[in-house]
Amino acid sequence: MNKMLLKKDLREKRELINITLDRFLPRKDEYPKEIHKAVRHTLFAGGKRLRPYLTISTFMLFSDDIDLIRPVGAAVELLHTYTLVHDDLPEIDNDEYRRGRKTCHIVYGPDLALLAGDALLTYAFEMLGTCDLSVDLKLKLIKELAAEAGDHGLIAGQMMDIECEGKDVTSNQLRFIHENKTGRLIRLAVRFGCYVGKANETDTLRMEQFGDKLGLAFQIIDDILDIEGDTKKLGKSVGKDREVSKATYPAVYGIEESREMARKLIDEAKDLLAPFGEEAEVLRMLADFVFTRDF
Amino acid sequence: MNKMLLKKDLREKRELINITLDRFLPRKDEYPKEIHKAVRHTLFAGGKRLRPYLTISTFMLFSDDIDLIRPVGAAVELLHTYTLVHDDLPEIDNDEYRRGRKTCHIVYGPDLALLAGDALLTYAFEMLGTCDLSVDLKLKLIKELAAEAGDHGLIAGQMMDIECEGKDVTSNQLRFIHENKTGRLIRLAVRFGCYVGKANETDTLRMEQFGDKLGLAFQIIDDILDIEGDTKKLGKSVGKDREVSKATYPAVYGIEESREMARKLIDEAKDLLAPFGEEAEVLRMLADFVFTRDF
Repeated sequence: MNKMLLKKDLREKRELINITLDRFLPRKDEYPKEIHKAVRHTLFAGGKRLRPYLTISTFMLFSDDIDLIRPVGAAVELLHTYTLVHDDLPEIDNDEYRRGRKTCHIVYGPDLALLAGDALLTYAFEMLGTCDLSVDLKLKLIKELAAEAGDHGLIAGQMMDIECEGKDVTSNQLRFIHENKTGRLIRLAVRFGCYVGKANETDTLRMEQFGDKLGLAFQIIDDILDIEGDTKKLGKSVGKDREVSKATYPAVYGIEESREMARKLIDEAKDLLAPFGEEAEVLRMLADFVFTRDF
Repeated sequence: MNKMLLKKDLREKRELINITLDRFLPRKDEYPKEIHKAVRHTLFAGGKRLRPYLTISTFMLFSDDIDLIRPVGAAVELLHTYTLVHDDLPEIDNDEYRRGRKTCHIVYGPDLALLAGDALLTYAFEMLGTCDLSVDLKLKLIKELAAEAGDHGLIAGQMMDIECEGKDVTSNQLRFIHENKTGRLIRLAVRFGCYVGKANETDTLRMEQFGDKLGLAFQIIDDILDIEGDTKKLGKSVGKDREVSKATYPAVYGIEESREMARKLIDEAKDLLAPFGEEAEVLRMLADFVFTRDF
């Protein structure tokens, strides 16, 4: 039952985000077509929209005016998709499948995929800059997005990930990579929901912790699924991590201990939601979904 | 004499921009070092800082408070350098030299060069978002930067440039490529100077036209220098355009007619400066410099 509720809610909010993105971006048939197609390729490849879902669901703990948060969730997804497109490039992971279809560089060539990623990153800022929020709030979101995405954040994590490939990593390096590469954006997605929802400081701090724990659990499960999952279900290549001996939790802690860590993080994340009562039910379900990925 | 004056002024404003950028960016020895080094590699390779120079010099037609404009000029240079780093990548131009040194991907590898470009683009927005201007003005600059840099602007020009390689291009396609790939950012550099200097609408429109003409002339001369110039002086590979038969002005109009077009544009650009009298002297000198590149 819970699962059906969550699926319905995920579907509805995903649709909201997709409509928001579709209206914002140049149409496929605009000149020059190829780049607009390349930009849309990965963005509309049917991602789960987990990050914007977190942004919207967190926002709705504090406000009901969903139209306010739509562009903010969309901007988070634009930033996330830019990282996917660039990470998939031959220079970095050289991945062939993403979100169940051929990666952007396989379909449009590495040159257009590179530009498409650049465009997605640029759009994230444009979306926040042009949305219907107060000037102060927009600027606050833009500054934080830039800070988290820069080479102190996402890019630092990606860079360490590359540097650690094929090496024995310490648990600290592993933590650094995941906190920066995955954790920051998930925390930001949640924080943006708090900002736009005008949450008080206590609730914001609480929800940031929720985002941290959920984000780390998500990454650990992702690492496990790369070993146990199958390409069809995940929509991306599996077994690649071990192949190139990437820094992963199973590699450092083993599968069982990793699963235990994830389970514990999920429980702690759910405990943090207690004060929000029923309002936080979808977020509780989401936390469980992150663990099972039964989807 | 004029030439010495211009050189002195260029040197002084370049230094201001370099200091601004250096203070803003993470130090080379910050963790993780490699990415911060890669980010600085091309940025501090001794570029002429033509775009920020235009921003500052235009601003100074209307105001003397140079500290206000420094971060804005620096943001323009960050955006420009991101385009250089990504254009040089193997996917696109696969260039070996830039600003007189090996390109970023040759020194740090294509993976870090890709990330360095991403970081430079992100920094451009962060610089504008965090500088010491009114919230409204900052947001205005950020929105315009995003709009010009996106796949309606710079990226569209780059994409068409790629698509036209090896083909016979029409003068319209050529115009589209240069207006978007080079023209927009030069016009934006000038426009930002007007905005921050609180120029009235007439002056802003006039200076935008100046930027358009100067930008196109700059690109035409750039095309000519790729045929006639030498690598040492330009600090980048020459002859490459013809090698890969890029869309260039000499290719479409021949060298002499191209030179004539540039000369005409420069004269028109200088005429536009008339109302500013002596104040605009460095911009007049700069326009002549763009034609001769005697530097």
